[in-house]
Amino acid sequence: MRATSFLVLTLFVAVVVTTDAADKNQPAVNGDRIQQHITALSKFGTNPEGGVSRVAFSEADIAGRKYVAGLMQEAGLTLRTDAAGNIIGRREGSNAKLPAIMIGSHIDSVPGGGNYDGDVGSLGAIEVAQTLKEQGVRLKHPLEVVIFADEEGGTVGSFAMIGRLQPAALDLMTHSGKTIRDGIRAIGGDPDNIRQAQRMPAELKAYVELHIEQGAILDESDIDIGVVEGIVGIRWWDVTIEGVPNHAGTTPMNRRRDAMLSAAEFTLAVNRIATSMPGRQVATVGRIRAEPGAPNVIPGKVVLSLEVRDLDAAKMTTVYDAIHAEADKIAQARQTPFTFTQLKVSSEPAPTDERLQRIIAKAASALKLSTKVMPSGAGHDAQEIAHIAPTGMIFVPSVGGISHAPKEFTSQQDMANGANVLLQTVLAIDRGELR
Amino acid sequence: MRATSFLVLTLFVAVVVTTDAADKNQPAVNGDRIQQHITALSKFGTNPEGGVSRVAFSEADIAGRKYVAGLMQEAGLTLRTDAAGNIIGRREGSNAKLPAIMIGSHIDSVPGGGNYDGDVGSLGAIEVAQTLKEQGVRLKHPLEVVIFADEEGGTVGSFAMIGRLQPAALDLMTHSGKTIRDGIRAIGGDPDNIRQAQRMPAELKAYVELHIEQGAILDESDIDIGVVEGIVGIRWWDVTIEGVPNHAGTTPMNRRRDAMLSAAEFTLAVNRIATSMPGRQVATVGRIRAEPGAPNVIPGKVVLSLEVRDLDAAKMTTVYDAIHAEADKIAQARQTPFTFTQLKVSSEPAPTDERLQRIIAKAASALKLSTKVMPSGAGHDAQEIAHIAPTGMIFVPSVGGISHAPKEFTSQQDMANGANVLLQTVLAIDRGELR
Repeated sequence: MRATSFLVLTLFVAVVVTTDAADKNQPAVNGDRIQQHITALSKFGTNPEGGVSRVAFSEADIAGRKYVAGLMQEAGLTLRTDAAGNIIGRREGSNAKLPAIMIGSHIDSVPGGGNYDGDVGSLGAIEVAQTLKEQGVRLKHPLEVVIFADEEGGTVGSFAMIGRLQPAALDLMTHSGKTIRDGIRAIGGDPDNIRQAQRMPAELKAYVELHIEQGAILDESDIDIGVVEGIVGIRWWDVTIEGVPNHAGTTPMNRRRDAMLSAAEFTLAVNRIATSMPGRQVATVGRIRAEPGAPNVIPGKVVLSLEVRDLDAAKMTTVYDAIHAEADKIAQARQTPFTFTQLKVSSEPAPTDERLQRIIAKAASALKLSTKVMPSGAGHDAQEIAHIAPTGMIFVPSVGGISHAPKEFTSQQDMANGANVLLQTVLAIDRGELR
Repeated sequence: MRATSFLVLTLFVAVVVTTDAADKNQPAVNGDRIQQHITALSKFGTNPEGGVSRVAFSEADIAGRKYVAGLMQEAGLTLRTDAAGNIIGRREGSNAKLPAIMIGSHIDSVPGGGNYDGDVGSLGAIEVAQTLKEQGVRLKHPLEVVIFADEEGGTVGSFAMIGRLQPAALDLMTHSGKTIRDGIRAIGGDPDNIRQAQRMPAELKAYVELHIEQGAILDESDIDIGVVEGIVGIRWWDVTIEGVPNHAGTTPMNRRRDAMLSAAEFTLAVNRIATSMPGRQVATVGRIRAEPGAPNVIPGKVVLSLEVRDLDAAKMTTVYDAIHAEADKIAQARQTPFTFTQLKVSSEPAPTDERLQRIIAKAASALKLSTKVMPSGAGHDAQEIAHIAPTGMIFVPSVGGISHAPKEFTSQQDMANGANVLLQTVLAIDRGELR
């Protein structure tokens, strides 16, 4: 009896370790393999600080894509590169009439970036395909793993996939030293037929992207999984404040119309307004220029940036209106007119699909992982794909919330957790839970 | 009786017009001639906005100096150009043992300058010499009229005259495209023997400079003459504020250490402190740079300029100490350390001679001109010459307080008033009232 009891206990422990507390009948990803792939991918474009500078279309990007394409083939996917340079790996489902379940992310980085932004979602999606293949799970829907081209340069690949990349944008210069056109050609795309990259809603059942968080919300609260409720909208303005330039020595304090003082009051007002309203909106003054900009001249003009982000477009308008009203008061009191010019880079909020949020949360709970519903404060390919397919995003913790920097770090356990949630989400969609 | 009365009245009016309400026995300058000379000088380096760009050592400066030298010769002065390029016109006095009374200013301008800054004092001083010659007044003291070289580039000529121009400064580049060394050579100086420009205290009885005001203090109060009590000291600092750069989308408002917010609070505090203390001190933040300076990044660092000016060095220290204490509070509250680095361009206050202030005020009163004792908020050659001779300055109104701009304007009447006060001040010094 004693010997038997011991054996049963041992088996139980082994099951726990292997499946990370999940239902033992469910397939589960291999966390060690994800970690090995992350380490291997980090060699392409490695920078002295321990991260990567793998900007889109660079030699490092091209080499990294080749490495990742190899993993995709090993995972049983049939590869093609679309006209935009997106790598698409497909595995057919058992029902030829069904649209594809798409998962993926990107592997290009910002200059001086880290090893997790984009990479975790890309390698996590490949791991899902590998796990399904290894464990003999055949889906009803086709599965597509996508490595999007040039995410950091402005979600270029996903923008092309929804048919909105304008031909003029192809001539923009990128950090690689190539234009987007030449860059797409260098990674095997066909920029002259960029429209061919467009996918139709009927082709896609859903798109789900795994990604590291970019604030420290999960990390600081010790929560495993972020269920992304949407990607915030971004609105940018140039704010110009006109004062009167004058000699800083000879102009008494009470005869000044100093644009810098108005700019200072405005900057504090932006923060006060964004902070005092309930909600998670953010507002930032990140850039400032004073003219003429000499220590001995009272600034006659200040130009600064105003950025407002929120998940709710109406809330963004409310915040902006309150800021504008405060600017009017400052302009009046200091006799320094304000002009607001909205910039075209602004984007509207992209809520994720509520059904997918529920599926992701349920998958995490079944895996005994804690969850938090949260917005994404940064842009992602998912915000573009949301125009053509129900879209979901899964966040995993990033230590200290660091992103776009060599010090980015997500533990193997957290990466495995995220990939397991992604896997279970794919299975739930395939079972028909997205309805 | 009726006819006789009429004649007396007419004569009285005529006297008033000629001498501007002054004692009819006193010599008086010719306002029309000053105006003609101002107009003629404005042709050298004229700019499209109606002012002049007659930067030191430029072709326009060289031509303007030639014109002015001609006027000096007509005024009976014997000319020489010293090693620094200062034009010195001298007329001997009746007592060969006495030191010289020196008057003058400069004719070089800032780029995009006007027709009055420097020119009024230069042409006013020449007019004093011309008047003395025409009216047969011989002084006991020698009279020297000086046109200082490169005032706008940093009182270069007067700095050399007090023996403090360092040889290394000669290699600095100027707006003319020439170094100071080559510039001095181009205007007839001898930069290799710059020490020869130095004058000794024993050679100079006094230096008095006529200049336009550079705030609107006289103009707005409708006062004729400013009796300058001193030239304010200037202290400059670079202030560096360290925050934490972070993603402006993903970093919640309550997790930010935004250097821009601290800079805004600091800028308002500088103004509040300078304004709330009694006195005429000024403090200015004229330059600001945020890093990285992108609309979507919370500023991790802000560098801004702090300038404090006052006539009283102790007051400047009090203002700075109060500002620094406030910075410490902001640094503490926002966890953004401040660093203050004082720059070498700072200069100490240069009070004018109190006896000369009284002589100038008395001369103005005798001419029935209203006066106001005031500081000069800007630097002048007088602040250098104060190191080797009792120094006084006479200000005349500048419409709207405009200076260093094409729109500078001082009326003929105000120029004549200033030159008459200068003339009477010279006569009073010559009579022995400076004792």
